[in-house]
Amino acid sequence: MKKLMIASIPGDGVGKEVVPEAERVLKAVSELHGGMEFQFSSFPWSCEYYLEHGTMMPENGLEQLKGFDSIFLGAVGNQNLVPDHVSLWGLLINIRREFEQVINVRPAKVLKGLTSPLVNPKDFDLLVVRENSEGEYSSIGGRIHQGEDEIAIQNAVFSRRGIERAMRYAFELAKSRRGHVTSATKSNGIVYSMPFWDEVFDEVSKEYPSIHTDSQHIDALAAFFVTRPEHFDVIVASNLFGDILTDVGAAIMGSIGVAPAANINLNGKYPSMFEPVHGSAPDIIGKGIANPIGQIWTAKMLLDHHGETELGEHLLQSIEHVTSKGIVTPDIGGKHSTTEVTNEIIKTLQN
Amino acid sequence: MKKLMIASIPGDGVGKEVVPEAERVLKAVSELHGGMEFQFSSFPWSCEYYLEHGTMMPENGLEQLKGFDSIFLGAVGNQNLVPDHVSLWGLLINIRREFEQVINVRPAKVLKGLTSPLVNPKDFDLLVVRENSEGEYSSIGGRIHQGEDEIAIQNAVFSRRGIERAMRYAFELAKSRRGHVTSATKSNGIVYSMPFWDEVFDEVSKEYPSIHTDSQHIDALAAFFVTRPEHFDVIVASNLFGDILTDVGAAIMGSIGVAPAANINLNGKYPSMFEPVHGSAPDIIGKGIANPIGQIWTAKMLLDHHGETELGEHLLQSIEHVTSKGIVTPDIGGKHSTTEVTNEIIKTLQN
Ligand SMILES: CC(C)[C@H](C(=O)O)[C@@H](O)C(=O)O
Ligand SMILES: CC(C)[C@H](C(=O)O)[C@@H](O)C(=O)O
Repeated sequence: MKKLMIASIPGDGVGKEVVPEAERVLKAVSELHGGMEFQFSSFPWSCEYYLEHGTMMPENGLEQLKGFDSIFLGAVGNQNLVPDHVSLWGLLINIRREFEQVINVRPAKVLKGLTSPLVNPKDFDLLVVRENSEGEYSSIGGRIHQGEDEIAIQNAVFSRRGIERAMRYAFELAKSRRGHVTSATKSNGIVYSMPFWDEVFDEVSKEYPSIHTDSQHIDALAAFFVTRPEHFDVIVASNLFGDILTDVGAAIMGSIGVAPAANINLNGKYPSMFEPVHGSAPDIIGKGIANPIGQIWTAKMLLDHHGETELGEHLLQSIEHVTSKGIVTPDIGGKHSTTEVTNEIIKTLQN
Repeated sequence: MKKLMIASIPGDGVGKEVVPEAERVLKAVSELHGGMEFQFSSFPWSCEYYLEHGTMMPENGLEQLKGFDSIFLGAVGNQNLVPDHVSLWGLLINIRREFEQVINVRPAKVLKGLTSPLVNPKDFDLLVVRENSEGEYSSIGGRIHQGEDEIAIQNAVFSRRGIERAMRYAFELAKSRRGHVTSATKSNGIVYSMPFWDEVFDEVSKEYPSIHTDSQHIDALAAFFVTRPEHFDVIVASNLFGDILTDVGAAIMGSIGVAPAANINLNGKYPSMFEPVHGSAPDIIGKGIANPIGQIWTAKMLLDHHGETELGEHLLQSIEHVTSKGIVTPDIGGKHSTTEVTNEIIKTLQN
């Protein structure tokens, strides 16, 4: 019997509504399988927790999470309660960094039955590999002077190790896909970090002669996601560029509410973390209409990560079966509730 | 008689094809007006110039440009000839910086007759005010160590003066538009520069109590350009964020080939520079199919800048008249050449 110990962190807002639903789905999956079991432990760390305790998680929070097989996170942040940079760096980014989840993987593809905002979304199926540990999201910087002379400096830090790691991960994934890797750059405007990024991309490319490569500036690439997303297979991007591209990727799928993500620890020292692309969506809290698909698709990535790719595929097919029947939440044009959509996915799984 | 001395820099690739066409349009405009005249002086500075001289412009290049009323630029950069960071920083960015063109303004709106890639582009009409002098495009940074330990550090530099200037410019524009300014931020992930940006935005907002404001993270905002661009009026963004947003803005209009831009000098010491959003498009050079509309719409911004807003409006209407008749280049689904589209715009202007 394979038993996976999962740390659930519903977090804020709709995170609290979709995580339990996706847990139900994972339980249903494990019942199908027989040979595996999930055991969830839930942690209440969130902005509300912060208001009570002054920190987003307890001092030994990471210690508590360390032993789990994976972390299953909903959404973090509610600007109305706690400034975003405090809540995010105190929980989400903290876990990404401390658990060396150096890669963030986010697919975007046409889900059957979903209405894309694009006239002609063809059959795009792309995967963004985002460097998840450094780059523009560095905690190095500061301010100087007061009043009208005030200046803030923010460092972006790119290491060859960090870049190579992300790029190799992208190339490896491309091997079992359509054999194409695109590098997101901006070396025409950002003249230290990005030419370095380009150099490393050239070098790593040489290790994979069978993979087709190209390089696009982030401004053009974001536009291409709108005008011809079907041209892309695997895209490797820095922390910030990956962040932007994956939101645009979610938009062209039809809703940020469906987009999944995985934060991957590569060295096996710490758990990986699975969290959808969407945020806590404070505007729709409590209405029962949060789209559970992002969280459920994220559960599929968790299954894949633990070697259960067949079950993962089965789950994604069940999701698509339900979306293609139009059983979806209002953000993607449906009339169904979070629970109804989840129930339908579970029913489909079981048949 | 008002005489405007214009320095034309066609630059690279299609820049060479569309700048002369847009000059013809400006000449036609001046003939209509009677009271004004354009005198163009053309400068051959480009990647080809670089190959011959080792620099993108002569040492006294800026000196040569200084006395002109405006600069009219096509496109700079051709990676096949010169690395982009060399060509761009040697010409385009050099001029932006040295001539203190601290603001970059770029509209995006539905042009009649153009097919947007969006299913339902509603009637969006937005304006991105991009900080054009600092931020992520700083020339401060470098590298350390060799081989696998190599690290590149890039500084982003934000000054209160620079930020306030761009924000005030945005607020002033919003007054004569729909009274709404959106700030592009990323303070949840980038923790020194962006919280500073947010603070300054809060402060400047207070000076404009009649303007409605909101703040969106760049990832979400780029996605909103796809899912609900009609929600936005004026957006104020950092150098990099403005760059990305305006390419997405161009994409939702139907083609980057139509998007115009202005680099504004505010202190009156140097000329402003007018250049479309698109690049040199090396893949279509010499085919006679480059879309001239971006450059011609850019000419409208030049007219506006010199107080000729009525002529500017007339020119934009003429452009829309022609696009609505489907007389357009292949990038936006037409069969017409650069020259045919231009001729038609001139004919329309004259009627
Ligand atoms: C060519 C490049 C340096 C430039 C920029 O990023 O500023 C371009 O993309 C633009 O938007 O004008
Ligand atoms: C909330 C924020 C810090 C985060 C990020 O930018 O990484 C989010 O946008 C994401 O993409 O996971």
